[in-house]
Amino acid sequence: MTHFRYLSFLTDYGLEDGFVAACRGVGARIAPHADIIDVTHLVPPGDVRRGAAVLAQTVPYLPPAVHVAVVDPGVGTARRGVAVAAGDSVFVGPDNGLLSWAVTASGGAARAFSLTNRGLWLNQVAATFHGRDIFMPVAAHLAADAELAAAGEEIDVGDLVTLPGPERLVRDSTAEGEVLTVDRFGNVQLAITGSDAAEIGVRPGGTVLVHLGRRQLTLPYREMFGAVAPGELVAYTDSAGLVCIAVNGGDAAQRLGLPPGARVSIAAVPQTIRP
Amino acid sequence: MTHFRYLSFLTDYGLEDGFVAACRGVGARIAPHADIIDVTHLVPPGDVRRGAAVLAQTVPYLPPAVHVAVVDPGVGTARRGVAVAAGDSVFVGPDNGLLSWAVTASGGAARAFSLTNRGLWLNQVAATFHGRDIFMPVAAHLAADAELAAAGEEIDVGDLVTLPGPERLVRDSTAEGEVLTVDRFGNVQLAITGSDAAEIGVRPGGTVLVHLGRRQLTLPYREMFGAVAPGELVAYTDSAGLVCIAVNGGDAAQRLGLPPGARVSIAAVPQTIRP
Amino acid sequence: MTHFRYLSFLTDYGLEDGFVAACRGVGARIAPHADIIDVTHLVPPGDVRRGAAVLAQTVPYLPPAVHVAVVDPGVGTARRGVAVAAGDSVFVGPDNGLLSWAVTASGGAARAFSLTNRGLWLNQVAATFHGRDIFMPVAAHLAADAELAAAGEEIDVGDLVTLPGPERLVRDSTAEGEVLTVDRFGNVQLAITGSDAAEIGVRPGGTVLVHLGRRQLTLPYREMFGAVAPGELVAYTDSAGLVCIAVNGGDAAQRLGLPPGARVSIAAVPQTIRP
Repeated sequence: MTHFRYLSFLTDYGLEDGFVAACRGVGARIAPHADIIDVTHLVPPGDVRRGAAVLAQTVPYLPPAVHVAVVDPGVGTARRGVAVAAGDSVFVGPDNGLLSWAVTASGGAARAFSLTNRGLWLNQVAATFHGRDIFMPVAAHLAADAELAAAGEEIDVGDLVTLPGPERLVRDSTAEGEVLTVDRFGNVQLAITGSDAAEIGVRPGGTVLVHLGRRQLTLPYREMFGAVAPGELVAYTDSAGLVCIAVNGGDAAQRLGLPPGARVSIAAVPQTIRP
Repeated sequence: MTHFRYLSFLTDYGLEDGFVAACRGVGARIAPHADIIDVTHLVPPGDVRRGAAVLAQTVPYLPPAVHVAVVDPGVGTARRGVAVAAGDSVFVGPDNGLLSWAVTASGGAARAFSLTNRGLWLNQVAATFHGRDIFMPVAAHLAADAELAAAGEEIDVGDLVTLPGPERLVRDSTAEGEVLTVDRFGNVQLAITGSDAAEIGVRPGGTVLVHLGRRQLTLPYREMFGAVAPGELVAYTDSAGLVCIAVNGGDAAQRLGLPPGARVSIAAVPQTIRP
Repeated sequence: MTHFRYLSFLTDYGLEDGFVAACRGVGARIAPHADIIDVTHLVPPGDVRRGAAVLAQTVPYLPPAVHVAVVDPGVGTARRGVAVAAGDSVFVGPDNGLLSWAVTASGGAARAFSLTNRGLWLNQVAATFHGRDIFMPVAAHLAADAELAAAGEEIDVGDLVTLPGPERLVRDSTAEGEVLTVDRFGNVQLAITGSDAAEIGVRPGGTVLVHLGRRQLTLPYREMFGAVAPGELVAYTDSAGLVCIAVNGGDAAQRLGLPPGARVSIAAVPQTIRP
């Protein structure tokens, strides 16, 4: 009996080297029945928060899988590797918080194991490529035939490293949050949910007052960016359920100079009822 | 019985976010038997013509499939989604012309359906991510078990939006056409076919006079770029059957300043027969 | 009986065009049972040495396969195409040295064939796209049902084009080598092995004197980059067994201005035993 038909794979390895392929090859040798779905390999090098955000927003749409994620600036140091059961999936990667938001999005960690069983690793382990030599082989064994408990020593799920959640505060009539990610189109995703927005009276069809540091913008809040004219700024609830600032057909992050981590607050602009 | 073993997938989603993976996950859940072939996800954001050109030139080499293509600057607005049967394949995407050149290359639309059957969509549809919530799930259902007619209301194939073909005019001894695409290597592909060229007397072994606005170049016309010395300009009929201007080992688009859409005309240079 | 379950695929085609997908489609039509593992398609255009290095370092981790590699600045000229049996795999591509390091890494060429059997090609062959029209179809036939000898005329393995190995010289207490590759992270991989380093007394825990042209650096030699503080330079034996210069959390190639091909020499710094 195989345990998982699918593996998913997220890294900061990039696509110009053979790193991803080496890992896929290792996975194919151990779990030839499995399909590997690439989440992305273009996480900026070492950017654990960005990796965590992409993983958490993608996993709900993936089939049950062993999700392998490696953004691992501390590879080879004391940080441990872990396998975490959450929902109907297993997450494998470094215990540096990378997995934590996706684990939460999957219902929270049920059990966790430190990857101490060298029997599931490759025979030779390079100190700088645990994706190839530890994480992928362990994940492939878990997908193929190994029980989760075979990964290593069980650890308390409360001891897992968790990233601090994105900053987000709803207070009176204002919601504050950081820029969580900027996507390929330059759409600026805030750590404020559509429900937060609704709670303070910001709803599609209305108008939202946006504070970016000292700057202040008044934007239409719509169902989608396409509701405003090309080149115009707009806010809406995006496909991950978060408040997003965009330019229809343009790049809002560039236009507004808003990188991930920047602080933004929003408030409703009262609608004047025309007589 | 499953209907299609393969899905193909072209978007402008890029590779740095989890958008492509979310769609693949949705496809895998609905049609676990299907293999998904990525055409490209690096269409410049919103560039429908570029997406249409890449799709039309690639589809003839793909197996029968449900081809999903999403370059969709109007996502969430009134533009409809469609499923179009053409040749031995089905094309699914926004009805904005993106599919039209590939449909023509596959023998033309036999039947077309507006994607109005919400039973084939995901339960929740984000206004800005129809690739994940409508196009991929519909395509996966068509690949797995649904009849084409289940996609929605049948529409007249004559009502499908078609992109105007690339500009191209053969007249007397001259062929004019726009730059259709520039590939990774900087090769400049014109909307002039190798047959057009032959008709006006431009053939491998000969010489071609190229007008780029006010500039004029005399280039060898060869079987391939490798027939001239490294660093030299050359014209030839490319692997899509179109006239192409290249630099052997270099970037012709950059050297000549020729972006997609630029107008070019070619004519034969009479061969002087040496005595 | 099928011969190979896997194909691997390395090119310089990039990801923004449909070139890779057209080849995958051709492969799927001929060998629908096969899985294709992408090694990379981002080899810099025409950079045969870079392609050879990535292929040779990745192949040891791939399952037995028909490895298709196409970095082919001479496409359509007199250079021949070849299929080479080495180890438990077959390599297919242009005979320009691209395959040679991987063939050596797989135990050396056992037999080699010139791709002269047009029965395994596509019916129509574009002079500039042998990846789609010759290499992939031949490889897929070899994976599916064709015997290696069906590829064409057998040739002497000694007649295969081989790339000169990377420059590397160990002499007395110094090891010299060129920069072989720079990876996504800016880690600088030298053509000096970890064993070469050990031979001249450079070992983890010690200190290494690095000469870059006239510049001279003294670096800690460690098990991994994570052993030094963020932002610090370090040398170590990398996951391919080669000496590598890195910045923990940074880009060493940029900091040091070290492109592929640059000459570097290293020597041990004697450890002063503290009294």
